[in-house]
Amino acid sequence: MATLNHQTGIVFGHTPLDVSKATLVVTTDHQSKPVQEVGEDESYTLEVTPTGAKLHAANPLGTLRGLQTFLQLVSVTPDGFAAPAVSIQDQSRFQWRGLMIDVSRHFIPLDVLKRNLDGMEAVKLNVFHWHLSDNEGFRVESKKFPKLQGEGSDGLYYTQEEIRDFIAYARDRGIRIVPEFDMPGHSTAWFVGYPELASGPGPYQLERKWGVFDPAMDPTNEKTYKFLNEFIAEMTKLFPDQYFHIGGDEVNGKEWDSNPKIQEFMKSHNIKNNVELQAYFSQHVQELVVKHGKTPIGWDEILVPGVSTNIVIQSWRGADSLAAAAKQGYRGILSNGYYIDLGWSAARHYAVDPMAGAAANLTPEEKARILGGEATMWSEYVNWENIDSRIWPRTAAIAERYWSPQTVTDIPSMYFRMETESSRLEWLGLTQRSYQRPMVERMAGSAPAAQVDALLALAEALEPVKDYNRESTPGEEPTQLKPLNRMVDTVHPESELSRQFSVAVDQFLASSCKDSAKAAALRAQLTDWAAIDAQVQPLAQRSVLAQNALPASSAFSQAAELALTALDRIGQGLPLPDALKRQQTDAVAAFETQAHQSQLTIPTLSAFQKLIEASGTAGACTSAK
Amino acid sequence: MATLNHQTGIVFGHTPLDVSKATLVVTTDHQSKPVQEVGEDESYTLEVTPTGAKLHAANPLGTLRGLQTFLQLVSVTPDGFAAPAVSIQDQSRFQWRGLMIDVSRHFIPLDVLKRNLDGMEAVKLNVFHWHLSDNEGFRVESKKFPKLQGEGSDGLYYTQEEIRDFIAYARDRGIRIVPEFDMPGHSTAWFVGYPELASGPGPYQLERKWGVFDPAMDPTNEKTYKFLNEFIAEMTKLFPDQYFHIGGDEVNGKEWDSNPKIQEFMKSHNIKNNVELQAYFSQHVQELVVKHGKTPIGWDEILVPGVSTNIVIQSWRGADSLAAAAKQGYRGILSNGYYIDLGWSAARHYAVDPMAGAAANLTPEEKARILGGEATMWSEYVNWENIDSRIWPRTAAIAERYWSPQTVTDIPSMYFRMETESSRLEWLGLTQRSYQRPMVERMAGSAPAAQVDALLALAEALEPVKDYNRESTPGEEPTQLKPLNRMVDTVHPESELSRQFSVAVDQFLASSCKDSAKAAALRAQLTDWAAIDAQVQPLAQRSVLAQNALPASSAFSQAAELALTALDRIGQGLPLPDALKRQQTDAVAAFETQAHQSQLTIPTLSAFQKLIEASGTAGACTSAK
Repeated sequence: MATLNHQTGIVFGHTPLDVSKATLVVTTDHQSKPVQEVGEDESYTLEVTPTGAKLHAANPLGTLRGLQTFLQLVSVTPDGFAAPAVSIQDQSRFQWRGLMIDVSRHFIPLDVLKRNLDGMEAVKLNVFHWHLSDNEGFRVESKKFPKLQGEGSDGLYYTQEEIRDFIAYARDRGIRIVPEFDMPGHSTAWFVGYPELASGPGPYQLERKWGVFDPAMDPTNEKTYKFLNEFIAEMTKLFPDQYFHIGGDEVNGKEWDSNPKIQEFMKSHNIKNNVELQAYFSQHVQELVVKHGKTPIGWDEILVPGVSTNIVIQSWRGADSLAAAAKQGYRGILSNGYYIDLGWSAARHYAVDPMAGAAANLTPEEKARILGGEATMWSEYVNWENIDSRIWPRTAAIAERYWSPQTVTDIPSMYFRMETESSRLEWLGLTQRSYQRPMVERMAGSAPAAQVDALLALAEALEPVKDYNRESTPGEEPTQLKPLNRMVDTVHPESELSRQFSVAVDQFLASSCKDSAKAAALRAQLTDWAAIDAQVQPLAQRSVLAQNALPASSAFSQAAELALTALDRIGQGLPLPDALKRQQTDAVAAFETQAHQSQLTIPTLSAFQKLIEASGTAGACTSAK
Repeated sequence: MATLNHQTGIVFGHTPLDVSKATLVVTTDHQSKPVQEVGEDESYTLEVTPTGAKLHAANPLGTLRGLQTFLQLVSVTPDGFAAPAVSIQDQSRFQWRGLMIDVSRHFIPLDVLKRNLDGMEAVKLNVFHWHLSDNEGFRVESKKFPKLQGEGSDGLYYTQEEIRDFIAYARDRGIRIVPEFDMPGHSTAWFVGYPELASGPGPYQLERKWGVFDPAMDPTNEKTYKFLNEFIAEMTKLFPDQYFHIGGDEVNGKEWDSNPKIQEFMKSHNIKNNVELQAYFSQHVQELVVKHGKTPIGWDEILVPGVSTNIVIQSWRGADSLAAAAKQGYRGILSNGYYIDLGWSAARHYAVDPMAGAAANLTPEEKARILGGEATMWSEYVNWENIDSRIWPRTAAIAERYWSPQTVTDIPSMYFRMETESSRLEWLGLTQRSYQRPMVERMAGSAPAAQVDALLALAEALEPVKDYNRESTPGEEPTQLKPLNRMVDTVHPESELSRQFSVAVDQFLASSCKDSAKAAALRAQLTDWAAIDAQVQPLAQRSVLAQNALPASSAFSQAAELALTALDRIGQGLPLPDALKRQQTDAVAAFETQAHQSQLTIPTLSAFQKLIEASGTAGACTSAK
């Protein structure tokens, strides 16, 4: 109801003004489970006719999903808000449709997480996986072991009362909360307060950088398991969900190698290597989780020969690894391909399917073990301010992948729906569009309006470098303490403006360059872009935050200028000589390299290149004249 | 600290990267009072030198104020963020610097209120006056009388736990929370659950409209006071502030007139009229408030002959009424002139001073009784979505009025500071700038981008009709249930774009129309505005939400066209014939009337008129050629 308020601006929930008007009738067969379960029925039927709308579901969970579909149907008309007449029978393809947020590397406040739960509900996601501890911070209050958050969080953690409230908030939206406490590696934050858990001599400090570090829990010390037993007892009481995530990824084993007592233990217990040692640890922790009534879930590494098939595997390695696990009887969810921190396009994520590849050849019984997937928001480069923009709207496309049939794959139509969802998400209070201008204004300081506008235009057009390339930029040593206030933090992971420009270039070329309206629109856009750098240069002289964007700004405006010239040549029927074409093609490639100095990429570069190609002697367009 | 994070995007609070760098050293003499008090010292000294910054205050309250000044000084430079070298000794002129928010007519969620507390802290306001009950809703959980919120709130109220949390949040920002329970009028919401408190026969329903209604508490029934005694006991425990607001405004007395028992009582107690009857009630309630250890505060009406000078008067009537009260020994605060719901310009509010008018002639002792002022956000036409834009940035100008010397009155410099503050407020999470685009997108539905842009341009240029003129528009019967999703709800109360345009017209005319750069800028803006209506017309045919904006859209584009023609005539030295000038002047006036049909006003109309004047035969510009 609140969602409909925000979408329409109309407040419902009061006595209706006119009860004779078309109404939405909601019926359910029975209550949902006391604690939301994996595989609980989320199907619904929705019928909209001129006299009213009927929504039926087995339980309130299905109702929540159906209501979101109804909301997607509602649009403004000349006479009011209306939904088209439809008859829908709908159910989810996967039962585990998740979003993981890492709150360790950068702490994310609860109000930000809550509005992201609102967003998840809107796109029918049903699992919030809370990555609560890692080397850089331990974010949950433990009453039993208060030094966990006391020494391990810089004071940035959630109280148990806040967590209970958050879980209830999620429950109201049909979202399970799966907590993750990563161990035995990724656990430096535990050791700041409790160094006795670790395999090294200590003392330990919070990591400020990221990556794989040496500290790891001591799997050979009975006290480790005594501690974990009490800790898991406390946390399994706090978190009602059936699943309890124990991490398990990326242990380099160095602390184990250099500890003589551990080496001794391995010898006496016939443990041959660190993989076996981790399996030994994992086995013990899984038993503790089961003892406290929960089902363990962990990353790929916890799948070792002989481990109980009760566990669930979350695969960061890939769909084939997941299919292999399913063959062996393990349930799993896919995260490889859904790492939204890597800056991929929505189209690229959308093309990844948990049932693709080796999974396609599984038996139905094996297929049923593939529960779904999770988008993962690792927080190296996000904070309260830009995290919404790194999650949305791309996660709406991933959510559709998890809910809708595998056959729904059309890309242009996905983008159309995604942008519509993006408006809806902003009405809910998400900031994936509005975050940008205040960040640009901060970079701009007191610059004149024309310069601020140019900086904003730059921010709208460029994207961050993809994958892990930001970390490898010289002089860009990543750390938790480094502010996220520069252009790379401000640009959208996927620029909708640039995507539309590239589509328009394709359409223009497909018309054999005869679509003059399209040509005019491309020219106007390129003219704007070519003019950006002249404004950004003086601005950046006065602002340390904008300076870093200069290489990209200069590269982008020059590249746009080249594309503009190409467009002009096409228009005038003046073919570009081969030598010049080669030269410009090289220049375009160099511009991309130059943009990388700003940790940025120019997403329209291949569209620019296409225009240059088309303007060449052999080009489809000019040669036709 | 969080504020500095948001302003700079840098996370502080971790171990500094380089402790040898310039630091901010904060010292205080002693703790603040356990409960923040009126008149508590808020002064501070701030010294910024090349080697560091020193902030000293008597107590943490002064520190909070000084930190905000420091934050205002921090700006981005070529080398990082920096504050200029300054030496500041600062203290507030008034000790009561408030913002009132009415949460009865439209319920405002706590997260919205919290970000407004952040905004208040940024501009050094120190009182949040919470108008918690009125005819349209009772918004506080009473455990003693649960039907107050149970029957009187549509389920939209704050729990006591939420209120305690909110008070703590305010306390951390140096803000007192003064609760208001308006009585004996403005109290229909109480009577839905407890009709026995009222003077009429009942039953009662929540009012959906606003204004002055008949229902009023029964001042002649001992049970009323017994109820209020228990209620005030509960609420004075919940709200720690020394002051307790009992409302007291606008009782029409009709229920008293028509109740024979009340008439009987008045006769037998020698109460001559309703004013005396309200004074009798007020006297009793004030005694209850005092009995529970608090100081009563109320609107003008509670000041009647013989009432204790312990009370504080909040004047909606005006500065003279306040000065008269001060003469009689009463303390007071000014709200007249600070009604931010009326859509006045910041300049107009800024010109109002609690010490102006009759107050200037008071003795120092009497002057000391004028404690300060409060901006009042009555919520007839605001909700979660647009309330920030109705409060900010104009309230920053009012806050400066309360803090800074009376002699600081320069308007252009105020606007410059206010817009700078507005950026800072958006970094804090306030939405007074970003709210507009999602609302425009909702109105636009699935219209093409050019039409959406035109609608946005219209939204940026126009303003809502001022004062109470919205209510008097034919067909615009105001009610709580009517959505706030049309253009009048979307435009800024004061358009910064239009203000700047008007300033530019004045500058152009002051240059005897010789400033050709200014002329080009004016021409570009007018050309854009003149083109709006052609885009908005087809959009509005398809959206019920936008239809209402059509008269204003058409009037605005036509008016801009006239101004454009005038500008052209000035440029060409072609004077406008007198008859044509008269005709155009009449047309401009008619456009304003036409815009009112959309509940909108065209703030640039007088600038347009100036251009038409200047283009006339007698105009300063064309005649000079």
